[in-house]
Amino acid sequence: MSESIRVGLLGCGTVGTGVIRILEENREDIVARLGAPIEVVKILVRDPERPRDPIVPRELLTSDPAEVLDADVHVVIEVLGGYEPARGLILDALARGHHVVTANKALLARHGGEIFKAADAAHRDVIFEASVGGGIPIIRTLREGLASDRIHALYGIINGTSNFVLTAMAQQGRPYPEVVAEAQQKGYAEADPTMDVGGIDAAQKLQILVSISFGIAIPFESILTEGIDRVTAADIQFARQFGYTIKPLGIAKAHDDGSIEARVHPTLIPQSAMLASVNGVFNAVMVNSHALGPVLFYGQGAGMMPTAASVVSDIIELGRNIQRGTSGRLPHLAFHPQHTSGRVHRDADRTRCPFYLRFNVKDQTGVLSRISGILGDHSISIRQMVQDTSLPGEPVHVVLLTHTATEGDVMAALKTIETLDFVVEPACYLRVEDLQ
Amino acid sequence: MSESIRVGLLGCGTVGTGVIRILEENREDIVARLGAPIEVVKILVRDPERPRDPIVPRELLTSDPAEVLDADVHVVIEVLGGYEPARGLILDALARGHHVVTANKALLARHGGEIFKAADAAHRDVIFEASVGGGIPIIRTLREGLASDRIHALYGIINGTSNFVLTAMAQQGRPYPEVVAEAQQKGYAEADPTMDVGGIDAAQKLQILVSISFGIAIPFESILTEGIDRVTAADIQFARQFGYTIKPLGIAKAHDDGSIEARVHPTLIPQSAMLASVNGVFNAVMVNSHALGPVLFYGQGAGMMPTAASVVSDIIELGRNIQRGTSGRLPHLAFHPQHTSGRVHRDADRTRCPFYLRFNVKDQTGVLSRISGILGDHSISIRQMVQDTSLPGEPVHVVLLTHTATEGDVMAALKTIETLDFVVEPACYLRVEDLQ
Repeated sequence: MSESIRVGLLGCGTVGTGVIRILEENREDIVARLGAPIEVVKILVRDPERPRDPIVPRELLTSDPAEVLDADVHVVIEVLGGYEPARGLILDALARGHHVVTANKALLARHGGEIFKAADAAHRDVIFEASVGGGIPIIRTLREGLASDRIHALYGIINGTSNFVLTAMAQQGRPYPEVVAEAQQKGYAEADPTMDVGGIDAAQKLQILVSISFGIAIPFESILTEGIDRVTAADIQFARQFGYTIKPLGIAKAHDDGSIEARVHPTLIPQSAMLASVNGVFNAVMVNSHALGPVLFYGQGAGMMPTAASVVSDIIELGRNIQRGTSGRLPHLAFHPQHTSGRVHRDADRTRCPFYLRFNVKDQTGVLSRISGILGDHSISIRQMVQDTSLPGEPVHVVLLTHTATEGDVMAALKTIETLDFVVEPACYLRVEDLQ
Repeated sequence: MSESIRVGLLGCGTVGTGVIRILEENREDIVARLGAPIEVVKILVRDPERPRDPIVPRELLTSDPAEVLDADVHVVIEVLGGYEPARGLILDALARGHHVVTANKALLARHGGEIFKAADAAHRDVIFEASVGGGIPIIRTLREGLASDRIHALYGIINGTSNFVLTAMAQQGRPYPEVVAEAQQKGYAEADPTMDVGGIDAAQKLQILVSISFGIAIPFESILTEGIDRVTAADIQFARQFGYTIKPLGIAKAHDDGSIEARVHPTLIPQSAMLASVNGVFNAVMVNSHALGPVLFYGQGAGMMPTAASVVSDIIELGRNIQRGTSGRLPHLAFHPQHTSGRVHRDADRTRCPFYLRFNVKDQTGVLSRISGILGDHSISIRQMVQDTSLPGEPVHVVLLTHTATEGDVMAALKTIETLDFVVEPACYLRVEDLQ
């Protein structure tokens, strides 16, 4: 048996504890697969005295980062979350010659460029499977399984909280606030759920997927991002009438002109699509590539054990490199501007898809003709239409599905339509992907 | 840019031509990801003179294996299929110090032990992503993404022909022979479809998945294997009434006593399961593991380009090792008896699942009571029952769904029931998996 792979843990919350548990429970299998045991030698925590899961070896705890970074370790695991001190500690670890595993998508989305540059300079690896899709090995798959191929598009349900909320609304007909409250109670949503339901978390993950798939660093702040709080029970019903399910998607596409489109928003997808069967807190990523065609990866997107399993698989991967004295097996393409091969981020106004439009209007003659006229003026044609029956004098819903239209045209048309006197409130719009 | 990775091709049929096409079309991306180009230097074919896709460089063709094996190559790609000369050429390639990529599941299932032993002795790698699930990177995922985890069970739709046939029967209500004929016409099935529809192809793939997942070499001939030719339109209808879809599954489970169960047969699975949405020639593998819970991987299981893409990703993986002068990154656990950690192949008679049973009986009183009595004598209890209405004097279908029962008990009960005078023909039985 080879020398053990020694790791230091930065953080020992849910994921850190899960890492210790997996290393303990699967020790024998890991030795068989790696040819060596993995040994945790030091653990950074804020308060070494507070009660913890008994699986955590208390004698390894310290509140002094230097005790982890200066220990005789091969790999440092960052499971603190947040920007600081995570960023500083990772840079310090690299400078001391340690490899790094991190689950920190927010950190990579914001400081990935700096971190991977430091890793390359130090000839050390930073790997990050758990940062997207929790237990689904999507990062590894994109970097290795699809290394031979050209990706055209990817569609990901990459925020479990949002998917849980939309699934419960759709399956149980319950209103948004009630479902969000349940998600908070179950621990699926934070006290402040904005990062999840607002789409920021998904945008950070999409940035990482885009950087790997297309070799371009698009800051997540510049990704068109809309939250699921825009979806009402009525929209779910109307979508169903059209044969669609509403799912929280991160979408990225490569265009022939070299531009890359990236968006995060609730999306109508056909009920028959595989992604439409991805319910509850589950995640899935569908990739369309040149040779493979469509592939889909499905699993738990979060949680102690799935995330920890991804972290431990990352340690095993680094262990295999360490045993051979090698590093840099997988290039950090995405985060290096010189590798973006002339690709640019397509302006959101220029992206195209079919739209779902719901207008709340006074029930009077000529409404549909005015609306469709304005849409037509903006090169938007209608594919399907339904209209609510209403009580006399009550407003009525006019709901349209358009053919493929340009984002900028749709926004301009909606602005004009909102000024019409029979329009009771601003239109609700959602985007459609037929996933073909 | 580093030195190019030089490869020799053994075979230039559909997959070999696809490999050449991908290397050509994705040259730039591959260089960015590998840091070096991949160059085909020699290609073994039976007849260098016959017309070929113009992308194949004719000047590289030879009908002499030695010209490939003695060439200055790093990697030899075996896409000949069949046992010989594939086996002998792979052993020769290893003896000459070349790494090997193969897509040959039949060869690995039968001669994997010998081949991986030779690879270890020569300190060379044999990798084989394309051997199972065509374009789905399932082998890599099991070996690396799930390296940290303990797998409890896997369920795979791993034969596209069988899935195409059952999907068409279910969706279009067409009879088995007609759909098989269409599959042959479309090139989804061979002239002799036995290997596919009879389950042998799936059993060979399951052997490979089992060996990676559970570290035990179960010869595919000893895997309980039944073909989809046993499924009738009536069974599909009755299954639907019970809420099930019939899919061609390879199933493997690890039991607490260390035994591993493996079976290939048409299986009733709940209509709401993700696997039930996998239609046509698509493949999917669902894995249940300790930490990750359920994960599912979906994509095209065969075809020129998906299979070729997997082969090229394998070349890139080996290229990364070759550049670092290393090999043996991933252990060939499965094929080494010393790594089977005391696991044994569970006797088929001892496997347990719910059963679907269809009896064709004379329409007379007391039938159900006799059948259920015999089932009860064999510890088999009934969960659900439907009975055909029949014309007077005509036989009637009695269809049962049992609770979980033992294979051996069910077979014994059916044998007894067949002797009853009101039974018109041998019972049809299918197995059920609730995938929970």
